[in-house]
Amino acid sequence: MKARVIVMLKTGVLDPQGEAIRHALGAMGFDGVEGVRQGKVIELELADSTSEDEITRMCERLLANTVIESYRIET
Amino acid sequence: MKARVIVMLKTGVLDPQGEAIRHALGAMGFDGVEGVRQGKVIELELADSTSEDEITRMCERLLANTVIESYRIET
Repeated sequence: MKARVIVMLKTGVLDPQGEAIRHALGAMGFDGVEGVRQGKVIELELADSTSEDEITRMCERLLANTVIESYRIET
Repeated sequence: MKARVIVMLKTGVLDPQGEAIRHALGAMGFDGVEGVRQGKVIELELADSTSEDEITRMCERLLANTVIESYRIET
């Protein structure tokens, strides 16, 4: 089975990479870019027996720093 | 409007970050992790008039390095 984990900085945590992209897009002439946040996506190829609980544990223990990041699991 | 761009290394391009995650999950006792690829997700807050063509141009010109990366736009 495949699972996708999206890890984003929490709202309120400064995102300099996203800010740099927003600024660059503006400088390149793209109008109307109001905000940009950059995060990570982790695509997992897992044994079919893997439970969503186990994926949650992977996120909590390794994939996300839950102090400053939130994660979303898409299966 | 919101748009999400997913940027992944193309198949065949070495992904050391993904490999490191796969190895770490195995070492932590998570069985059945067969493969991991890590990529970027860019969440854009755009003016409602922005066309998908324009987002494609942002990807081609800035967000993805199309030599080694592929991108997917989700609106």
